[in-house]
Amino acid sequence: MPKRKICVVVTARPSYSRIKSALKAIQEHPELELQLVIAGSALLDRYGNAVDFIEKDGFTIAAKVFMVLEGENPTTMAKTTGIGVMELTNVFYNLQPDAVVTIADRFETIATSIAAAYQNIPLVHIQGGEVTGSIDEKVRHANTKLSDLHLVSSDDARARVIKLGENPEKVINTGCPSIDLVKEICAEETLNFDPIEKYGGVGEELNWKDGYAVVMQHPVTTEYQKSREHITETLEAINKLNYPVFWFWPNVDAGSDGTSNGIRTFREMVKPKSIHFFKNMEPLDFLRLLKHSSALIGNSSAGIRECSYLGLPVVNIGNRQNRRLRGKNVRDVSPQRDEIYDAMKEVINYNKFPVSKIYGNGEAGKKIAEILASSELSFSKTINY
Amino acid sequence: MPKRKICVVVTARPSYSRIKSALKAIQEHPELELQLVIAGSALLDRYGNAVDFIEKDGFTIAAKVFMVLEGENPTTMAKTTGIGVMELTNVFYNLQPDAVVTIADRFETIATSIAAAYQNIPLVHIQGGEVTGSIDEKVRHANTKLSDLHLVSSDDARARVIKLGENPEKVINTGCPSIDLVKEICAEETLNFDPIEKYGGVGEELNWKDGYAVVMQHPVTTEYQKSREHITETLEAINKLNYPVFWFWPNVDAGSDGTSNGIRTFREMVKPKSIHFFKNMEPLDFLRLLKHSSALIGNSSAGIRECSYLGLPVVNIGNRQNRRLRGKNVRDVSPQRDEIYDAMKEVINYNKFPVSKIYGNGEAGKKIAEILASSELSFSKTINY
Amino acid sequence: MPKRKICVVVTARPSYSRIKSALKAIQEHPELELQLVIAGSALLDRYGNAVDFIEKDGFTIAAKVFMVLEGENPTTMAKTTGIGVMELTNVFYNLQPDAVVTIADRFETIATSIAAAYQNIPLVHIQGGEVTGSIDEKVRHANTKLSDLHLVSSDDARARVIKLGENPEKVINTGCPSIDLVKEICAEETLNFDPIEKYGGVGEELNWKDGYAVVMQHPVTTEYQKSREHITETLEAINKLNYPVFWFWPNVDAGSDGTSNGIRTFREMVKPKSIHFFKNMEPLDFLRLLKHSSALIGNSSAGIRECSYLGLPVVNIGNRQNRRLRGKNVRDVSPQRDEIYDAMKEVINYNKFPVSKIYGNGEAGKKIAEILASSELSFSKTINY
Amino acid sequence: MPKRKICVVVTARPSYSRIKSALKAIQEHPELELQLVIAGSALLDRYGNAVDFIEKDGFTIAAKVFMVLEGENPTTMAKTTGIGVMELTNVFYNLQPDAVVTIADRFETIATSIAAAYQNIPLVHIQGGEVTGSIDEKVRHANTKLSDLHLVSSDDARARVIKLGENPEKVINTGCPSIDLVKEICAEETLNFDPIEKYGGVGEELNWKDGYAVVMQHPVTTEYQKSREHITETLEAINKLNYPVFWFWPNVDAGSDGTSNGIRTFREMVKPKSIHFFKNMEPLDFLRLLKHSSALIGNSSAGIRECSYLGLPVVNIGNRQNRRLRGKNVRDVSPQRDEIYDAMKEVINYNKFPVSKIYGNGEAGKKIAEILASSELSFSKTINY
Repeated sequence: MPKRKICVVVTARPSYSRIKSALKAIQEHPELELQLVIAGSALLDRYGNAVDFIEKDGFTIAAKVFMVLEGENPTTMAKTTGIGVMELTNVFYNLQPDAVVTIADRFETIATSIAAAYQNIPLVHIQGGEVTGSIDEKVRHANTKLSDLHLVSSDDARARVIKLGENPEKVINTGCPSIDLVKEICAEETLNFDPIEKYGGVGEELNWKDGYAVVMQHPVTTEYQKSREHITETLEAINKLNYPVFWFWPNVDAGSDGTSNGIRTFREMVKPKSIHFFKNMEPLDFLRLLKHSSALIGNSSAGIRECSYLGLPVVNIGNRQNRRLRGKNVRDVSPQRDEIYDAMKEVINYNKFPVSKIYGNGEAGKKIAEILASSELSFSKTINY
Repeated sequence: MPKRKICVVVTARPSYSRIKSALKAIQEHPELELQLVIAGSALLDRYGNAVDFIEKDGFTIAAKVFMVLEGENPTTMAKTTGIGVMELTNVFYNLQPDAVVTIADRFETIATSIAAAYQNIPLVHIQGGEVTGSIDEKVRHANTKLSDLHLVSSDDARARVIKLGENPEKVINTGCPSIDLVKEICAEETLNFDPIEKYGGVGEELNWKDGYAVVMQHPVTTEYQKSREHITETLEAINKLNYPVFWFWPNVDAGSDGTSNGIRTFREMVKPKSIHFFKNMEPLDFLRLLKHSSALIGNSSAGIRECSYLGLPVVNIGNRQNRRLRGKNVRDVSPQRDEIYDAMKEVINYNKFPVSKIYGNGEAGKKIAEILASSELSFSKTINY
Repeated sequence: MPKRKICVVVTARPSYSRIKSALKAIQEHPELELQLVIAGSALLDRYGNAVDFIEKDGFTIAAKVFMVLEGENPTTMAKTTGIGVMELTNVFYNLQPDAVVTIADRFETIATSIAAAYQNIPLVHIQGGEVTGSIDEKVRHANTKLSDLHLVSSDDARARVIKLGENPEKVINTGCPSIDLVKEICAEETLNFDPIEKYGGVGEELNWKDGYAVVMQHPVTTEYQKSREHITETLEAINKLNYPVFWFWPNVDAGSDGTSNGIRTFREMVKPKSIHFFKNMEPLDFLRLLKHSSALIGNSSAGIRECSYLGLPVVNIGNRQNRRLRGKNVRDVSPQRDEIYDAMKEVINYNKFPVSKIYGNGEAGKKIAEILASSELSFSKTINY
Repeated sequence: MPKRKICVVVTARPSYSRIKSALKAIQEHPELELQLVIAGSALLDRYGNAVDFIEKDGFTIAAKVFMVLEGENPTTMAKTTGIGVMELTNVFYNLQPDAVVTIADRFETIATSIAAAYQNIPLVHIQGGEVTGSIDEKVRHANTKLSDLHLVSSDDARARVIKLGENPEKVINTGCPSIDLVKEICAEETLNFDPIEKYGGVGEELNWKDGYAVVMQHPVTTEYQKSREHITETLEAINKLNYPVFWFWPNVDAGSDGTSNGIRTFREMVKPKSIHFFKNMEPLDFLRLLKHSSALIGNSSAGIRECSYLGLPVVNIGNRQNRRLRGKNVRDVSPQRDEIYDAMKEVINYNKFPVSKIYGNGEAGKKIAEILASSELSFSKTINY
């Protein structure tokens, strides 16, 4: 019997980390053949070209798709998606997969969904059913409505996808594959690398060994003009706290230029003493850095997902993660420097929280592969009510 | 105060007919400015270029967008959508509308939705919340999840959109604007034109004055290879019945070539005696033709919508209209020649059914314009559960 | 030593016939690997899908590229080219050929040229250096300026490419591969198939065995609105002559709709008695049909090229072939019914002309493969003056 | 009589400066209407968004076209061009210009040419007929073959365009509009602004008042992997010379990342003491900076054109400007640190050269407008031999 060909489209470096355990499980499954497509910002040096990581991890890339139009504004975001639909349609037409996997809710993931659904290829959506703010919210649920099989990350998400009219048999809580990675490094007692030595970056040489926090703040696309304002509030709060901080550059969403410019200007004008900047880090190292930190600050979904399992205190700024299911480790604040400062000051002295399994128990990748191998694949459905 | 700019995108001739009363009401509303975009197959002679109709009806076209890639298969359907996203993004970027209106569920309508939603333009969806088979089903609900305001055609549809997690205040049953046109011609006692004289067409010179039926059968996209088989069943049934029939060519969906080829081959081999073929007809004339006919056969949504108000008997073939809300006038059959034949034989002798207002009372256009002028427009939302 | 990978892009059915002997020679060459890309109208049923022919001829298709935007006007012609650049760039990026071959001067061939040249892939142009009217003229010479190696069809063409500033060592007269096919069937004494029996078509059952002519008339793109007018002149002339004629539908250039509509209308109004229409024919059969005909009428380049070797009288209408090198068998007329009629009346009684080798001796394919295998490939050049 | 609509497409900031005097002359001409399209990197902050300059200069922008695909490699360069063809076709379709102007030889300028030529719009090419290395060489001459009217910058260029088979009446030496700007500032005795105060930038606070040089070095696209190597040679030479230098970041060509990364790395590792970096400068200020400098180093075409009129010594590195016509002020060196160092050391002590008018006398803009207003516009041509 021929293996089922499973085409997974990864459009950004962080998505790769999140799906990696599932990719591995698919690759190793005797009844599955992995067709890995790398697209969008995952190919671009500016956002941390993921290709090197991926090949080092032992994967073969079936196709690469350049599709990011420059401009970093809502208009180029939309056009990028249009280009993605054209290109990915071609890719699927040539690869002839038995199923296509689209991941989560980045704006360009709907290109994967359309290219598959319109060509009558069974579409599998990972991480549907969650709730956030901004354009992601629309994209995620539209992906759900275009998809035939839903592998969600929590019971909460499963209930929501079913409410959206999907057949309950087609909605399965596998847990989130991002937790699989966390589990891998969870037992390590100390940080086993020197971040600055290994990753360079720019900014101050921190004395991080006695404690540090991590910052990761992305622009919020429906408010992209406010990106610069928001980032400045966070910068001011962090600078005032004067506590060692490793800061990661934002992703490719519209407005990242506002965020980036905000950071650049602040650096030149204020010359903050306690911040070191990284462009990106190998996924496992990033998790290690989190595990051994005092807190995560910003609006990264890592604060919601990975940190729940880590029990790491999180200061979650603004409405980007909105109503996404969260553990007790998350403290929400608005993008105001005082609120951020006060929250940070408190949480960096917290103990770790207990492990929460709301996003799975670290076996998601294997479950996903198993379901892809065994479940019935179809491309036609009707709403359940 | 500046008028609200309402950009309506029409991508197919039939969509134009359906939205016409709303376009007129928007154009005439003192607080609204209409920006009419004509795209896709609505521009193509092969499918009945709508531009002439539209300008004759007194509308100015703000932009024309060629976007249909040749091939008429799922691959070109997907790529057409990608081109549409690119092009419509540009159009909206230049027109700067206050709201964009996307209509129903044709595959390319999601291009309108993405181009607007990603650029943070409030998106209004007309005819959401219905249920059918095939790719339309996925597209329609994905459009709902990308839209901010839902102007639906029935109470049934309204309930479904709300179940999909939309804010009830943003879901309004205006009735379907297609019924507005029906109401216009509903009082006419006789057919006031000779179809063959006025529209030419090819095939037999029918003796239609003592009774005729109308056929309109589109390919079903998730089964596009079966299009030819299905159309042949219908052709055989109709040929056997030997009752005068006006037959309309299919639209531009993938597979229409199967349907078209099926018709062409049948004509050449069998030379049916009772069928006359039209490419298209002015919307009101089409409704007149329906009103004075004995029955509509095929899978057109006109059978479900317009014919409910007309009370015209309908033989609805196959699963294209699937679970769409229907009146008592509709009889569902599977795509088998015997079933079709038997149903037709019966219904052509029926009396008309009473007027049903399940799709509105013929005032939808005005209600739509009024809501567009007065309701709060936003582009950010979160699922309701 | 690895084989040189030669990627040939065929964008239209007629181009396939013309290049076929070269494809075969490349495929059979021990040092070459053929990567055959089929794109544009060569994939479309409307224009005679070439894929079946090609696979039957023993070629494997490396990639298919749908790129023809519907509309058949100058705007969609330009956009089609843009889509072609995007898609073919992807194709070359994935195939990684050592050289790309672009053929002649159809509008979309410049997409092949740009996709190769911009990616620093050595570009080989076949059939450069000729002279015609319309947009082809601009496209052909632009292709020359983007190309690195020029395999031309005549001494006249070679001289012209050199005058255009190309290095004489990179300009080689191989003869035209289309003549290779002619040579193959040249010795056949009679037409070895019944065209109507084998190819169907529509129109009259002609009594062609005592003599017939062939008509092939394409729209002239810089005058696309005149297409309908021109075709009508030809139709009137041919109808008046009342001599059996096999007529081929036009290709996909802008304006073919004018041409097609002209033909359709004429058929319905005038019901010409002596014309039978074909959509397309296998290349060799088409040449056979020509060989055994009395004359070719229209503006096809086959009249200039293939017919020179056949010695077939040609009535060449209008300026589409303009100043292309021609043999004594060609008689030029303007698109006026009387001129066409008079010329046809005369030439159908001519004897055949002697074989002319101005376009080669029938060994072009082999020469092309040999040069592709042995010549130095580069992608950088500077004008020669 | 309606004004002639002249659509000029500017795809990069430097092209804007060069064409500015012509834009002004077109705008002010009583028989012309300017339709200014800003596209490509001219819209992007990363490369110095030109929109602000342009609007401050009093121009209205008729359309903006985002078309630059991220990646900065030959593949994205080609795709960017494809997107450009699609988008610009739309723009011209809507603007309906009487003529389109394409400028020089950047890779994406062929998109303008195709979009115009294929839609039968008379195409005017500015700065044709010159000779350089790299992909520009192919693009420039392909632009010539697609164009109908050639407004060249030198007698040398005019002769070359005619040799390319163009009708001599359609080839006019207007001089280069870039010289018009030079003439404007040519009489100023001293630098009337402080570059660092006015433009910020990064790097050392130079003591530039006693003499400084300017550096501008772009990647060479056919050797894009060597960009980093080349830039490092220049950086080493300049660092060794230890003479104050204002350095401008490279443009958006493929490989600029190599160049940019080379600069960034050098700055961090070597911390050069005599270099100050700018992203961009208002065109007139840039010319002022040149005029009062000791020399220009790099491979910018400004060294060839503007500096000829200024009589400024130029060290021209590598083959990017190749065989472009140059004055006595230009000294060519290969991209080797010693050669660059030696040449620089010498030329910074040179006196200025006398004004050379090989690229015009500073009246090009007016001549261009006059020709556009008075010459016959056509879109059909045939090669002259």
